[in-house]
Amino acid sequence: MEDLQSLTDYRNIPIERVGISRLALPIMIREMAGGYQHVQAESSMFVEVPAAVRGTHMSRFVELLHEWTDKPVSSGDIEALLEQTRARAGSLSAEAELAFRYFISKTAPVSGRSGVVDYRCAFKGRVDARGYRFALSVQIPVTTLCPCSKAISDYGAHNQRTYVDVDIESLPGALVWIEDIVQMVEGEASCPVFSVLKREDEKWVTERAYDNPKFVEDLVRDLVLRISGHADIARLSVAAESLESIHNHSAHASTVIVLQSPAEVGAFTLNDLQAARS
Amino acid sequence: MEDLQSLTDYRNIPIERVGISRLALPIMIREMAGGYQHVQAESSMFVEVPAAVRGTHMSRFVELLHEWTDKPVSSGDIEALLEQTRARAGSLSAEAELAFRYFISKTAPVSGRSGVVDYRCAFKGRVDARGYRFALSVQIPVTTLCPCSKAISDYGAHNQRTYVDVDIESLPGALVWIEDIVQMVEGEASCPVFSVLKREDEKWVTERAYDNPKFVEDLVRDLVLRISGHADIARLSVAAESLESIHNHSAHASTVIVLQSPAEVGAFTLNDLQAARS
Amino acid sequence: MEDLQSLTDYRNIPIERVGISRLALPIMIREMAGGYQHVQAESSMFVEVPAAVRGTHMSRFVELLHEWTDKPVSSGDIEALLEQTRARAGSLSAEAELAFRYFISKTAPVSGRSGVVDYRCAFKGRVDARGYRFALSVQIPVTTLCPCSKAISDYGAHNQRTYVDVDIESLPGALVWIEDIVQMVEGEASCPVFSVLKREDEKWVTERAYDNPKFVEDLVRDLVLRISGHADIARLSVAAESLESIHNHSAHASTVIVLQSPAEVGAFTLNDLQAARS
Amino acid sequence: MEDLQSLTDYRNIPIERVGISRLALPIMIREMAGGYQHVQAESSMFVEVPAAVRGTHMSRFVELLHEWTDKPVSSGDIEALLEQTRARAGSLSAEAELAFRYFISKTAPVSGRSGVVDYRCAFKGRVDARGYRFALSVQIPVTTLCPCSKAISDYGAHNQRTYVDVDIESLPGALVWIEDIVQMVEGEASCPVFSVLKREDEKWVTERAYDNPKFVEDLVRDLVLRISGHADIARLSVAAESLESIHNHSAHASTVIVLQSPAEVGAFTLNDLQAARS
Repeated sequence: MEDLQSLTDYRNIPIERVGISRLALPIMIREMAGGYQHVQAESSMFVEVPAAVRGTHMSRFVELLHEWTDKPVSSGDIEALLEQTRARAGSLSAEAELAFRYFISKTAPVSGRSGVVDYRCAFKGRVDARGYRFALSVQIPVTTLCPCSKAISDYGAHNQRTYVDVDIESLPGALVWIEDIVQMVEGEASCPVFSVLKREDEKWVTERAYDNPKFVEDLVRDLVLRISGHADIARLSVAAESLESIHNHSAHASTVIVLQSPAEVGAFTLNDLQAARS
Repeated sequence: MEDLQSLTDYRNIPIERVGISRLALPIMIREMAGGYQHVQAESSMFVEVPAAVRGTHMSRFVELLHEWTDKPVSSGDIEALLEQTRARAGSLSAEAELAFRYFISKTAPVSGRSGVVDYRCAFKGRVDARGYRFALSVQIPVTTLCPCSKAISDYGAHNQRTYVDVDIESLPGALVWIEDIVQMVEGEASCPVFSVLKREDEKWVTERAYDNPKFVEDLVRDLVLRISGHADIARLSVAAESLESIHNHSAHASTVIVLQSPAEVGAFTLNDLQAARS
Repeated sequence: MEDLQSLTDYRNIPIERVGISRLALPIMIREMAGGYQHVQAESSMFVEVPAAVRGTHMSRFVELLHEWTDKPVSSGDIEALLEQTRARAGSLSAEAELAFRYFISKTAPVSGRSGVVDYRCAFKGRVDARGYRFALSVQIPVTTLCPCSKAISDYGAHNQRTYVDVDIESLPGALVWIEDIVQMVEGEASCPVFSVLKREDEKWVTERAYDNPKFVEDLVRDLVLRISGHADIARLSVAAESLESIHNHSAHASTVIVLQSPAEVGAFTLNDLQAARS
Repeated sequence: MEDLQSLTDYRNIPIERVGISRLALPIMIREMAGGYQHVQAESSMFVEVPAAVRGTHMSRFVELLHEWTDKPVSSGDIEALLEQTRARAGSLSAEAELAFRYFISKTAPVSGRSGVVDYRCAFKGRVDARGYRFALSVQIPVTTLCPCSKAISDYGAHNQRTYVDVDIESLPGALVWIEDIVQMVEGEASCPVFSVLKREDEKWVTERAYDNPKFVEDLVRDLVLRISGHADIARLSVAAESLESIHNHSAHASTVIVLQSPAEVGAFTLNDLQAARS
């Protein structure tokens, strides 16, 4: 049978990303407390195709990703897969992403009842001439209560669900847990959200948010300060989108901070991966 | 050329809905204040295919819907289209739906500044042996403030954006405006939402919501009472989904009420159309 | 602390569905081959609130659903939960839904390579005065190849991914597997879809689809015939939506068939649940 | 009333983007053929907040965007708005985006019947110390037919709907039309898609696609070659995602090309804006 993808290409145009996206895959993720969690990932994997090659055999990518079925996947596993893929495809670079919902059990503040909350996460890896980079994304739902509304009103204050997106690139060899990111974000919000809240808890979260008003600007700044203190993070992106309870649109604040040696981390950016995924 | 769709079918199975969906179409909708609004509709159109016919010519549906391009569309226009389609296709029934965003200009409560708010709406029509039925769907974003949170807390109360879905079937010949539905729902919510709010308005909406706490159950009941008073409505469905600011899940309340002569309206239900659309 | 939800309500309006929706929950589903699969469900749970009661304690629902965390859930478990909930809330009816992605391993037709395909599924249960009803929904991606395009063209034929939605209500006590539904639908499509296909497999699926052209109308009729033969199914809904490769809209066919004793199953319809969920 | 947003901030952290997102707005877009099209935009607008300022008055942004209600908006209008906003907010930079569906009437290739097709588009603008940059995004649905499937099969070939995303930054003062981008992309695909196709047209598109097979890699390279020839484009991003008819996942190829003087365009990238929007 003909192998069209391996033909020589004469258009002389390299392509940065060629591969597959939106492949569903059941994998396992290691929990900070020990043990593993079964998650359902939406996966993608790309290589750079050199100018002289017509295409890539995408079925290989699907097979390679399937080796993870129902198995634990870490940053090191992604690095090994990408190195192997890049070598096999004769590519300058290779990238993979696994986006999944991750559950963390949380305890209500007064009653102590427990329930799980889900966080949308992603692992993103890239190998190229500069080596291997790894990024972790976590989306944390929180409550924000508006300082302006509280200050100008005789009583009450508008509040709402806010989604905080944190993307971090960790230093080579370092491990930053999803649970670490979640804990830092929930600690800086007007109040965390919970799945199970009895009446005594509802009183607590209502008063806690009212005592702790934050604009999305405040939340982003406080998170930059707090997360910057983590020794293993090289680059940080924080975004907060507030589903305003008084509007049908959102309030937004976001910023990117390079924490460690730009020479080391500057060439590879989260945005490169995000653009390919979206 | 062969015409496979017109062949006799021997499987002896009629099909309730055959046609096209997710066709984007620019149309116009008449505003209550006079004049017309340009909207972008996602349209669908189906006929019932009799047991002995293999299929339907879907390109005809696309052509028929295109006759509305950049033109006003009313319930009467949908009825005429469906009658014509049903006759041409030899069908027992025909249905069409136009789902669109509709803008209404709203004035901030204190500053008087104006801004548009968008409402997701749908026109749904059906002709069958029982005649023509028309349904209007409107989704209205509002603020709800939790009565329990207010009652048990020393200060503050959680509040959030809530989406209210109202589906109504009007009596034959009657006209119920989108603006009518929006006004009734916003009047019963803890507070309406606005696009433009200056500081003096933000104080107003904060205090208004705090003075007017409602569970989703309260909102649905108050809306059933209020909308039932509209003389031109035969059947009413109300649903409220609250994007809880203290949880990562929603609170929901919904109910359906038949207001007029079940013999007249009972056989055709909104659910029939919704199921086909979803 | 005040218990507002338990207050007497004087508006005299019962509400059909009150509860929570969009709650993420990790559960387990039994596989036909034995063993259990970890899935991530989006769950909802509602009760009917009588006219004289103001509201319901939604935190109870969240706690009850959490008893399933990381545990197997079957139709019998849903029945037990709903009976308990209905009794506790003094309600006429109670409903629950669990929507999740389910993976099935499939073997490529020639190379024998295996890979998982994901199917969107839902378990839906309801208890009311007429007893307990259970419905299973499965969405199956398949290939359809257009018979008209093949017949009128000198070569080639347009084909595309088509999503088939099957909703069934099983007879009391009967068990219909997700795998059963998937196998029947894939057997009637122009061709099943696979995750891993080597070149020899790609030749097979290309020719198989060309040899087996089907309109969405054909697919729905063939599925009604095939699934109707299943002895344990009381009511069946089949919908096919084809993401036409030659258009930017979809082709659609759908129908509902009552197979067993309408007196038994007629009062409870899948549409009732779908409307509450959407 | 207090003005909290104008307070001095002591955290010493500038924030790159602060503003509003997901604001729906009816505006007008100029058509290449003359005249204007009413569209419904989802808009966002951000400024950079300096380190010493606590926040920004988001209601101003909503008011400014509302000045465009039902009015034509061009790149020049966005520039003027951003310059005004940046000056008023004392910011280093300001950005705005308008994402909308745009309709183009297309004529079927044989019958000559006409129908509209919708394209998802976006206008994105940014002012900063380097001046004003403008980007246009257009998503074009097309048909792709797989060269491998055609080559290895005795008959037939799998084909599917593919979405092509083109993002371009035009040279200062230059105007690139949506219609220009659409025409170039449709000319390079295996075949364009249409809304209205009669049987003679369906034969034409089926054979045209079969005569013109393309991998996503081919399509991206051919588009880089073709669009690079446009004299007014400084930077180009092309992505193709194919909804494979034989899989439940997508094939993807994408690349970015800088065409003009990197010194001029290198500092401002499309990705910066995309990251803020997603």
